[in-house]
Amino acid sequence: LPGGPDTVFFLSDFGSKDEFAGVVRAVLRRLAPGAVVVDLTHEIAPFDVAAGARTLVRALPYLGPGVVLAVVDPGVGSSRRGVALAAGGPEPRFFVGPDNGLLLPAAELVGDPMVAVELERPVPEGDVTTFDGRDLFAPAVAALCNGAPLADLGTTIDPDTLVRLLLPLSRHSRLPDGRIVRWSQVSWVDRFGNLQLSASPSDEDPEVFALAWPEGEEKGEGGAGAPAGRMVRRVRAFAELRAGELGVIVDANARLALVVREGSAAELLGVGVGQVLGLAEPPA
Amino acid sequence: LPGGPDTVFFLSDFGSKDEFAGVVRAVLRRLAPGAVVVDLTHEIAPFDVAAGARTLVRALPYLGPGVVLAVVDPGVGSSRRGVALAAGGPEPRFFVGPDNGLLLPAAELVGDPMVAVELERPVPEGDVTTFDGRDLFAPAVAALCNGAPLADLGTTIDPDTLVRLLLPLSRHSRLPDGRIVRWSQVSWVDRFGNLQLSASPSDEDPEVFALAWPEGEEKGEGGAGAPAGRMVRRVRAFAELRAGELGVIVDANARLALVVREGSAAELLGVGVGQVLGLAEPPA
Amino acid sequence: LPGGPDTVFFLSDFGSKDEFAGVVRAVLRRLAPGAVVVDLTHEIAPFDVAAGARTLVRALPYLGPGVVLAVVDPGVGSSRRGVALAAGGPEPRFFVGPDNGLLLPAAELVGDPMVAVELERPVPEGDVTTFDGRDLFAPAVAALCNGAPLADLGTTIDPDTLVRLLLPLSRHSRLPDGRIVRWSQVSWVDRFGNLQLSASPSDEDPEVFALAWPEGEEKGEGGAGAPAGRMVRRVRAFAELRAGELGVIVDANARLALVVREGSAAELLGVGVGQVLGLAEPPA
Repeated sequence: LPGGPDTVFFLSDFGSKDEFAGVVRAVLRRLAPGAVVVDLTHEIAPFDVAAGARTLVRALPYLGPGVVLAVVDPGVGSSRRGVALAAGGPEPRFFVGPDNGLLLPAAELVGDPMVAVELERPVPEGDVTTFDGRDLFAPAVAALCNGAPLADLGTTIDPDTLVRLLLPLSRHSRLPDGRIVRWSQVSWVDRFGNLQLSASPSDEDPEVFALAWPEGEEKGEGGAGAPAGRMVRRVRAFAELRAGELGVIVDANARLALVVREGSAAELLGVGVGQVLGLAEPPA
Repeated sequence: LPGGPDTVFFLSDFGSKDEFAGVVRAVLRRLAPGAVVVDLTHEIAPFDVAAGARTLVRALPYLGPGVVLAVVDPGVGSSRRGVALAAGGPEPRFFVGPDNGLLLPAAELVGDPMVAVELERPVPEGDVTTFDGRDLFAPAVAALCNGAPLADLGTTIDPDTLVRLLLPLSRHSRLPDGRIVRWSQVSWVDRFGNLQLSASPSDEDPEVFALAWPEGEEKGEGGAGAPAGRMVRRVRAFAELRAGELGVIVDANARLALVVREGSAAELLGVGVGQVLGLAEPPA
Repeated sequence: LPGGPDTVFFLSDFGSKDEFAGVVRAVLRRLAPGAVVVDLTHEIAPFDVAAGARTLVRALPYLGPGVVLAVVDPGVGSSRRGVALAAGGPEPRFFVGPDNGLLLPAAELVGDPMVAVELERPVPEGDVTTFDGRDLFAPAVAALCNGAPLADLGTTIDPDTLVRLLLPLSRHSRLPDGRIVRWSQVSWVDRFGNLQLSASPSDEDPEVFALAWPEGEEKGEGGAGAPAGRMVRRVRAFAELRAGELGVIVDANARLALVVREGSAAELLGVGVGQVLGLAEPPA
């Protein structure tokens, strides 16, 4: 395309049941016919901005040059801003969507410099204010693909004013017997039931972890009350586990994850996104 | 493409579980390699021709030049015709699919002139008669993309003979106290549980509506029997509602819709597509 | 593309809930920007290699030149090989994925000659061993699209060493009254509930079949115990059936299938993939 990016990475909570994502793709095709749309996913849970933000962070290292169009937007029609960001250089990556915390973590992962504009809103036809993906964001993405400079899309704003999500908890404490336990949160349950943690691997990770639960939340096979403090092996691949065995793996995003070979760790432990879990050294 | 449209807008009830839509895309790629396929949705409920037709009508204003390929086809293998339509000009929009009411409302929205042909059926290999999307419609779409005139695809037929769906109910009546109530039907429940009505907004709409139910069908929070005649505010954006509050909005297709902020109006009211609902002026 | 195929047919068990398939598409876009990705389906049941293999076999006759990228991979991270295959000629079809039986049936359907290489594994970053679709297979596909000869992707191996799935059962026996019954398995339940059988049609098929069940497995409307030995008409099209009637049809893959007009044969009979069913001549 003349001077602009030629790829649009598209993520939303639009689902596949309706034509929402399809209509946005049609608008992009009409306004920027040379751009190729790469769908990341449209099955972010409705209104779950944080899940969308985490998904973009996971995907970002694998995206080439282009524009990320992301729409998880419970505040559509309110005074929340629509924004376009350019991050990094000399070939910046672009991000277009609502200013609600969805875009910023991935944009910051690209790195400095960051430039931000508040999108100028076209005069809506009738009273329509509920589909900014189609009416505001897709036209902005198309303009970028057609070579428009970022500044032409609206008013430059201070990136420090962009809405920022709270970070997931991650802290250390000591068990009664003195062992250190690293607490983190389940940040993603994928299709297979793997539980990605907000914790990253460390060179000091033991070969076997003791799984720790916040007081009163112990769960296990089939529900609460089950084997608190169970031992979990750290493995390099699913195949090192026995069928049905729970293990800890460094997952495809270089994060620690609780997994079951050919099974669901989420089902085995009965937990979901947000659950706090601790990894401790095994008892002496 | 040489003289033909270069975009295919594809809608079906094929779902994503099987390879049906993928195989049709593969046939298009093989026969018209330069055409770009824009998937609208493949999650139309199985056999629900009317839902497919309404989805095409909603999407149509946002589609650029191209061919709409739509397949919701309970009559496949019967004597129902396969058709291709050209609507409007000088650059007509094309529609290819079964003659069962699916295509006509969107084609009529494009406007006159309308030209229709009954697709000539290729000799089936073996006894295969169950997948016209792959064997009849996709080849016809590819021929159009490759520049074939519409008339080359089959026999010209009178557009007035095309199958037409019944229109949704919409009428006015008076409540016992003399207030006028406008009755319409729920025409779409989207992923978020928003209830699109067959009614359009009017300059005379009051700021607050009284929701009316057909006799004996009163429903409400959690089921029947609940607050019939509840007051519903008309708002311009979701954000003007309190969390959980039911409101009336002009939705992204310029239709009236019952919505809940960050929630599901369908769940709140316990209704689905086809439910008749009335909007009345509030009591004096 | 310079000397390489320009189309990638992509099938997986990644689902649509997560960004897995999207990230693979992004990697392909980055490494082989001129290639077009045609998604076949990503809703193969998790880890169901045989279902993936059968889906590829069904789709294959409709795929033009290109590379099939297929990932259903319970053994990721184990010693199972990643492979690339070239089948047929002079313009071979390519297949890239795990060596677990997923690719071989479709590749053999293309025909001889078959050339196979074990993919050379790039040095993994960190300990990541769980996402070969992204890290091993997509780069190999991109290399082929960019014109790399198959042999450049790794070490040539003997195709006879490729993992082979067991074939579905298909055998004949005699009922007590001497009639011949042909036993086969349900190989696919599609979105509509049609039951594809591993049996193919024959010129000697009668107009009406008697449905036979393995001893002790008789099922029927709503569950076990129902009309064993029911008569099922062979029809050429759904439309020849009454609404709700069970019939046998030659389906879109030229296989025998049990179907219900505008209904689900799977629900009517209460069966799923793998169920053994018999088709017999009707009693004299």
